[in-house]
Amino acid sequence: MAAQSIGIDVRTQGGPGVLHQLTGVIARHGGDITSVSIHEAEAGEARVFFEIRLPAEAEPLLAELRATSVVRGLETVETFQRVFGKRIIIVGGGAQVGQVAIGAISEADRHNIRGEHISVDTIPLVGEQPLAEAVRAVTRLPRARALVLAGALMGGEIERAVREVRARGLLVISLNMAGSVPEAADLVVTDPVQAGVMAVMAVADTAKFSIERLKRRVF
Amino acid sequence: MAAQSIGIDVRTQGGPGVLHQLTGVIARHGGDITSVSIHEAEAGEARVFFEIRLPAEAEPLLAELRATSVVRGLETVETFQRVFGKRIIIVGGGAQVGQVAIGAISEADRHNIRGEHISVDTIPLVGEQPLAEAVRAVTRLPRARALVLAGALMGGEIERAVREVRARGLLVISLNMAGSVPEAADLVVTDPVQAGVMAVMAVADTAKFSIERLKRRVF
Repeated sequence: MAAQSIGIDVRTQGGPGVLHQLTGVIARHGGDITSVSIHEAEAGEARVFFEIRLPAEAEPLLAELRATSVVRGLETVETFQRVFGKRIIIVGGGAQVGQVAIGAISEADRHNIRGEHISVDTIPLVGEQPLAEAVRAVTRLPRARALVLAGALMGGEIERAVREVRARGLLVISLNMAGSVPEAADLVVTDPVQAGVMAVMAVADTAKFSIERLKRRVF
Repeated sequence: MAAQSIGIDVRTQGGPGVLHQLTGVIARHGGDITSVSIHEAEAGEARVFFEIRLPAEAEPLLAELRATSVVRGLETVETFQRVFGKRIIIVGGGAQVGQVAIGAISEADRHNIRGEHISVDTIPLVGEQPLAEAVRAVTRLPRARALVLAGALMGGEIERAVREVRARGLLVISLNMAGSVPEAADLVVTDPVQAGVMAVMAVADTAKFSIERLKRRVF
């Protein structure tokens, strides 16, 4: 059997060391963990959600996990990649984040109907430091593919953060705004709705759109 | 020193077993891992982002992690809870998801300015099965607090999924729509912008709004 990706939702006892035990079992079965999230349920209980690439059938791994003392229950589930897919992140001032979101959500709808999986995630924020932190944090978010900066004035530390995350391979689109952030972005778009649409087009496999082939970077 | 939450961004070699080694070090220091995300960088390298509750100072843990053979680099970073905070998830048809997002983002902006951290995440989807899967997957998403179902017709398997996630403690708001989903939701709202606003008010510590104290459940 070929390698496959599976999702496992495990109910366990809470506390330090539980993840170490579970990952030990998974490593023994040659599983490559691509994502983990941990949720606290009631006192003393946790839910751990793994996404794992497995070289072989899942059943022996699942059986050994079920037999582990800290495990109280287990079910296989869809992976986040299958359900929520690629993520567009929109950060900035509420009025403009909302307009970019309208464009991105409408465009994602059109691609998701044709089999893509694109979600659009947003946070309205104010202030140079919180915005710079949010920009840097995007490269730690699972499945994030593009960042749109939606505001009227951004520069300084935010510009430095944009250059860092672009160097790590993230696509950055900026609204046409005051400050130095537009100079640091891959693409500058004046209309917020179009900025959202272009962000989705740039990451959709169902779209014919390539930032590299554009003759202009400012719209 | 009191317990603290820290974020650590670790560059490691890729492949099975790496997470097991790292979690072993963290467990030895009494660290309770509350979130992990794993990213592939270039071939043979991965980035692992941990959020850890620690009973003591971080430096001895960081030093031991740095000395681990699979670790190539490490830096401390802000936690997702501090940067992106609580999440409102909006799922459904593009036109309506966009309008709910407008309301939620504007309202989150007003609370985030006063020190809250609320982000608004969306995915436009079509079809009973994909929607039911997305609803169930929300309880596995880190920091998700409320779900808004934005559509014109939802029932069947989606209704069953709504009842399951409510039983796990997730707040569910439905637009007033055809199908059985509104009957299964905590709250039914006709105006999509207001639905987004109410979802944020319900999870914001800066808001005076409690679903339990409402005399009506349909608006």
